[in-house]
Amino acid sequence: MLLHLSTWPEVDRYLAHRQSIILPIGSTEQHGPTGLIGTDAITAEAIAKVVGEQTGTLVGPTIPVGMAHHHMGFPGSMTLRPSTLIQVIRDSVLSLAAHGFRSVLFINGHGGNINTVNAAFYEIYEEARATLGDAAPALRCALCSWFALPGVGALQAELFGDREGLHATPSEVSVTQAVHPDHIKTASLDPIAPTAGAFHDSRDFRARFPDGRMGADPSLATPEHGHRFIAAAAAEIAERYGEFLAGA
Amino acid sequence: MLLHLSTWPEVDRYLAHRQSIILPIGSTEQHGPTGLIGTDAITAEAIAKVVGEQTGTLVGPTIPVGMAHHHMGFPGSMTLRPSTLIQVIRDSVLSLAAHGFRSVLFINGHGGNINTVNAAFYEIYEEARATLGDAAPALRCALCSWFALPGVGALQAELFGDREGLHATPSEVSVTQAVHPDHIKTASLDPIAPTAGAFHDSRDFRARFPDGRMGADPSLATPEHGHRFIAAAAAEIAERYGEFLAGA
Amino acid sequence: MLLHLSTWPEVDRYLAHRQSIILPIGSTEQHGPTGLIGTDAITAEAIAKVVGEQTGTLVGPTIPVGMAHHHMGFPGSMTLRPSTLIQVIRDSVLSLAAHGFRSVLFINGHGGNINTVNAAFYEIYEEARATLGDAAPALRCALCSWFALPGVGALQAELFGDREGLHATPSEVSVTQAVHPDHIKTASLDPIAPTAGAFHDSRDFRARFPDGRMGADPSLATPEHGHRFIAAAAAEIAERYGEFLAGA
Amino acid sequence: MLLHLSTWPEVDRYLAHRQSIILPIGSTEQHGPTGLIGTDAITAEAIAKVVGEQTGTLVGPTIPVGMAHHHMGFPGSMTLRPSTLIQVIRDSVLSLAAHGFRSVLFINGHGGNINTVNAAFYEIYEEARATLGDAAPALRCALCSWFALPGVGALQAELFGDREGLHATPSEVSVTQAVHPDHIKTASLDPIAPTAGAFHDSRDFRARFPDGRMGADPSLATPEHGHRFIAAAAAEIAERYGEFLAGA
Amino acid sequence: MLLHLSTWPEVDRYLAHRQSIILPIGSTEQHGPTGLIGTDAITAEAIAKVVGEQTGTLVGPTIPVGMAHHHMGFPGSMTLRPSTLIQVIRDSVLSLAAHGFRSVLFINGHGGNINTVNAAFYEIYEEARATLGDAAPALRCALCSWFALPGVGALQAELFGDREGLHATPSEVSVTQAVHPDHIKTASLDPIAPTAGAFHDSRDFRARFPDGRMGADPSLATPEHGHRFIAAAAAEIAERYGEFLAGA
Amino acid sequence: MLLHLSTWPEVDRYLAHRQSIILPIGSTEQHGPTGLIGTDAITAEAIAKVVGEQTGTLVGPTIPVGMAHHHMGFPGSMTLRPSTLIQVIRDSVLSLAAHGFRSVLFINGHGGNINTVNAAFYEIYEEARATLGDAAPALRCALCSWFALPGVGALQAELFGDREGLHATPSEVSVTQAVHPDHIKTASLDPIAPTAGAFHDSRDFRARFPDGRMGADPSLATPEHGHRFIAAAAAEIAERYGEFLAGA
Ligand code: NI
Ligand code: NI
Ligand code: NI
Ligand code: NI
Ligand code: NI
Ligand code: NI
Repeated sequence: MLLHLSTWPEVDRYLAHRQSIILPIGSTEQHGPTGLIGTDAITAEAIAKVVGEQTGTLVGPTIPVGMAHHHMGFPGSMTLRPSTLIQVIRDSVLSLAAHGFRSVLFINGHGGNINTVNAAFYEIYEEARATLGDAAPALRCALCSWFALPGVGALQAELFGDREGLHATPSEVSVTQAVHPDHIKTASLDPIAPTAGAFHDSRDFRARFPDGRMGADPSLATPEHGHRFIAAAAAEIAERYGEFLAGA
Repeated sequence: MLLHLSTWPEVDRYLAHRQSIILPIGSTEQHGPTGLIGTDAITAEAIAKVVGEQTGTLVGPTIPVGMAHHHMGFPGSMTLRPSTLIQVIRDSVLSLAAHGFRSVLFINGHGGNINTVNAAFYEIYEEARATLGDAAPALRCALCSWFALPGVGALQAELFGDREGLHATPSEVSVTQAVHPDHIKTASLDPIAPTAGAFHDSRDFRARFPDGRMGADPSLATPEHGHRFIAAAAAEIAERYGEFLAGA
Repeated sequence: MLLHLSTWPEVDRYLAHRQSIILPIGSTEQHGPTGLIGTDAITAEAIAKVVGEQTGTLVGPTIPVGMAHHHMGFPGSMTLRPSTLIQVIRDSVLSLAAHGFRSVLFINGHGGNINTVNAAFYEIYEEARATLGDAAPALRCALCSWFALPGVGALQAELFGDREGLHATPSEVSVTQAVHPDHIKTASLDPIAPTAGAFHDSRDFRARFPDGRMGADPSLATPEHGHRFIAAAAAEIAERYGEFLAGA
Repeated sequence: MLLHLSTWPEVDRYLAHRQSIILPIGSTEQHGPTGLIGTDAITAEAIAKVVGEQTGTLVGPTIPVGMAHHHMGFPGSMTLRPSTLIQVIRDSVLSLAAHGFRSVLFINGHGGNINTVNAAFYEIYEEARATLGDAAPALRCALCSWFALPGVGALQAELFGDREGLHATPSEVSVTQAVHPDHIKTASLDPIAPTAGAFHDSRDFRARFPDGRMGADPSLATPEHGHRFIAAAAAEIAERYGEFLAGA
Repeated sequence: MLLHLSTWPEVDRYLAHRQSIILPIGSTEQHGPTGLIGTDAITAEAIAKVVGEQTGTLVGPTIPVGMAHHHMGFPGSMTLRPSTLIQVIRDSVLSLAAHGFRSVLFINGHGGNINTVNAAFYEIYEEARATLGDAAPALRCALCSWFALPGVGALQAELFGDREGLHATPSEVSVTQAVHPDHIKTASLDPIAPTAGAFHDSRDFRARFPDGRMGADPSLATPEHGHRFIAAAAAEIAERYGEFLAGA
Repeated sequence: MLLHLSTWPEVDRYLAHRQSIILPIGSTEQHGPTGLIGTDAITAEAIAKVVGEQTGTLVGPTIPVGMAHHHMGFPGSMTLRPSTLIQVIRDSVLSLAAHGFRSVLFINGHGGNINTVNAAFYEIYEEARATLGDAAPALRCALCSWFALPGVGALQAELFGDREGLHATPSEVSVTQAVHPDHIKTASLDPIAPTAGAFHDSRDFRARFPDGRMGADPSLATPEHGHRFIAAAAAEIAERYGEFLAGA
């Protein structure tokens, strides 16, 4: 059940027996010479839809732009400042809480969102505590990055070994190929550069990773692999769904 | 050309000859007993895509949640505070400006966004003036609400007369039916209530408009009408594209 | 009854039977070679006073500086960022709400304020909803721009025809001449330039409108015309006063 | 020379030889049973005008609402939060700085503004330093509270002795009587209560000072005294004008 | 009793009979050629500890960085913007209020903090009033700058006369020597320059006070003097403790 | 070399050859029945000092209060909202950058800070990019949580096995005992409860962990162990110092 394809009476009926919702969150950022700029939103949304179906959970709108400062050295990348993204998460969760939703699971396609979205949860909790005290609703927010799930990691290793890399990876590119088989891009890729070490700001990132990839070989991507990743990630999240939100 | 389905080298080539981009902006809010909660994002995105094709302009990600406080009395509605939406618009525009984009046309599906998005443009201009002075880029931001275009208004009048109304209208519902023909909802609708007057906060809105419609009869909607509205709106925007951004 | 010339016990007595207040809002910005920089505050305040007398409504302090980024290319113009003006409106309304005021009508002299002030109303409503829920007071905020009232428009057309223009207009200059007959300025004015199209930032504005006027011929202004505009605007607002706030 | 009664070409000529401006700042707050709610703005503006005349300095618009939380227990009082007032001061000063103004003297009528306005100056300086570095303009902001000037204090002591008090004082009420002789209020006043000690929030303030006065006997006020205070304060500020801004 | 050396059950027991807490606040900023950059935090903390012991009051963590923009011309100085410091004070006080603390005395070592911290108290009070209304806790916040206490002033005059000065003073340097006798610095100092007048931004400050001192001769400092200042300041604050918080 | 015990000329000389600085960051929060509320600041500061000595790096002031919302159910805990902590980190780093510092290593004692501090780094980078463009300094910020270092983990496992737990751990309590041997607390502790699962807000935390410990047995702590942890953590950070900041 997708929120944007539902009516308010349908949501009203849903809320009578269920107070959970899934929000996909992606990013709009470079993904190397062949990866789509919308990769992280596309993957998060595709997996969230399947999780929603398997668990009977409502899926809300995908947040398309995340925190991607480090990719700003490449044309087309967009970013929210962390302070802006925190407010977006806050307003989104509080909107849903107003209707009775009590658990919000963000299914995330972008590593750069993790710190900020988790920080946002505490912004929400602390504001509720300070202004509402004991009357604050018992909200349960959680973030699940599909690409970092153990089962997904096993599949990444099985299919791509050390060519998976960290950004513009064959696993995420595969998922976008599964979703958009008519938008498969090709380019001659430089050899994989070493990805040792961290990076700092966007200039530093581009200096270290000149074509935008981080140790990844996206030429290994196929739509078929993509379907496997969607299924694997969704199944893993669906299986652990209660755990994410109960904190069990 | 869609940003999320492009690669960064493709955007790089685009920027070599063109510095314009379109951003659709919608809302996630009730649209009466039969309208989809995602109506405003769906319509804005559908029309923006056609404008992009007709004018050869890049189309960026759709902002799915806008300023919809007044709909918060109905389950499933989401809203950003105006202060949050201003920052989202600011960060989005400044991200694009960093790559050389100089004109950003927001194609808008929701009346409630108009004030805030226009305010955001001045937040951007004034911040740039204050911090960058004469070095500020010459940005041109504009907002075009498709449902308020003269040609669209003529079609609304022709097809629906005074049953078009102001919210959950047959024109916008028709567009969603054209885009999602498999998600056409039906319900028995109360007679159209008078829409005289304005409204204030979300409780006031629900008291005035108990099922969420504002003087509209969405039962008149058809997918065919929707295709006509998409075509009409897109053609009108495409024709006046230079005007929107040149301010001519 | 003017708030700044009242005592708190007088306000206390007023609140026992009336919970409405008027706040004039203007701007501090260039108005062409002969228009006063304070024009928009002067006009809003003059009209608000008459409305207050005719309707027995308390009139609060005039907000003298508004959102006037686009005029910043001309010396003496001042602006608040939209984000600042939103907070000013918010704090003003919440201050008044604390004493029991429930309706606040802003009488506005400046087009550049419209988007931001309306956005501010939703900032207030949404914050109240999120923090107070059902305990939020039923506030009714409205903005009335005197220069855009239908009756005022008729008088503009009658007196000035197409020489009224859009900024530094003979109608607003007339009002300032009525209020400050000892501060009537003269200058030789260039022919009226075409005002086709919109503008973007303050540099763009000055490039389009080199002396600050937008298609207006303020040399047609007279104090007598000003008195007519004050009377006409005030009468129209007074007549529709209930409508503005009831949203009827 | 008053900014709101000037044209932009007049300001342009002023700036050619002078880069100073005065901004009056007041408050909208209770002033006891007989004091006007606009007292602090009225007094600051009246004195600023005379200083402007005597020193040939431009006087900008009066900020009518300041930081007056502690008076919120009395109907009609309005307040900006300190964080809002800081942004108002910031935007005002940066607007003026954009035109070449380099010194801004705030003439203040309200003790409650002092901390926040001074904090705002450092917000401005630090933001300029952090964003502009050595290119930051050499701004000089200063705040002068007329009621706390030594010469004014001598006159307060001479005319009212220990009946001057701290709020709703005969000196400030006298100034408002001089400016608005047709709005002199009378009421039977309770004996002056002791003002020992500080206060905390607005409830604490009202509990300590039930009618709003702080140890003051405003029944001693006369318009004649008011004219003396205006003259004395203005002369003292005019004499020390260079000192305020040079920091000499 | 120091908060950071206590356990939560110990604080729980403290709160059963006492709802007061002391928070030292300093600054991290240049203190001339021989003064420690941490001087203001060191002095505030040292005095606060003795006050805590003498009055049986809990002492919380020292805020080490304050508002010190004007010292930013000297290496090693750090500053929070006033807007940031206001939020730090707000969050700190509201955290403590959540546990039942009702009075918070800030013992302050830095003049530059005074305006901002006092402004923060009103930010707290006003936010509580606006969001909680009558349910807001009766908080009592106060700021005591040890170096400006009357008894401390008498000792400064007795020991150092007009060589005390205003910054990098022998009194504050003495206190740091008492606390850190192993970190006494020496340097040949220029003659004391006149300190007439105020200063504006950090460039102005450095131009007026080239080595960072403001009319002070810190070579007069000794650890013994420091112990006297700690004892004198602490005794004076302890004696007037109830007064600070009762506002008596 | 400690910043607070240095003079500005000493910092000036340091900067001539070194542009790195360490900032310890802790928290003020409950640490179970026997752990000190200041544990995380005490441990971070103690380890940072040793790292500073071993690497010849300047150590700045310890941030004593971090993001600890989840501990707010226990008396004495304090928290900054994530949005506040982001601004504190931003202002701190930008202050240091103004003097020429280019790398800032935060040595962290509290898991709850990790998301927010990392988000703050991107707030800094993105703001610098947006306002300064290519002129932005090449800042390198990094966060190192001592308790999560591999070598520290090995020692935790060796000394405490599965009784180390996640909060109020014997390793962190040992470090506080090493630093403050005169403040060792004892209490009879309940059996270790299972720590399965995550937690949400502060009420949820307290419900899951009634005495504040998360699966830890702090009765195993000794000062001797503490000295070993300080040495191990400091050596590991010192050895990898260049790596943290070079991102090597
Ligand atoms: Ni990705
Ligand atoms: Ni719609
Ligand atoms: Ni105007
Ligand atoms: Ni007053
Ligand atoms: Ni000091
Ligand atoms: Ni800890």
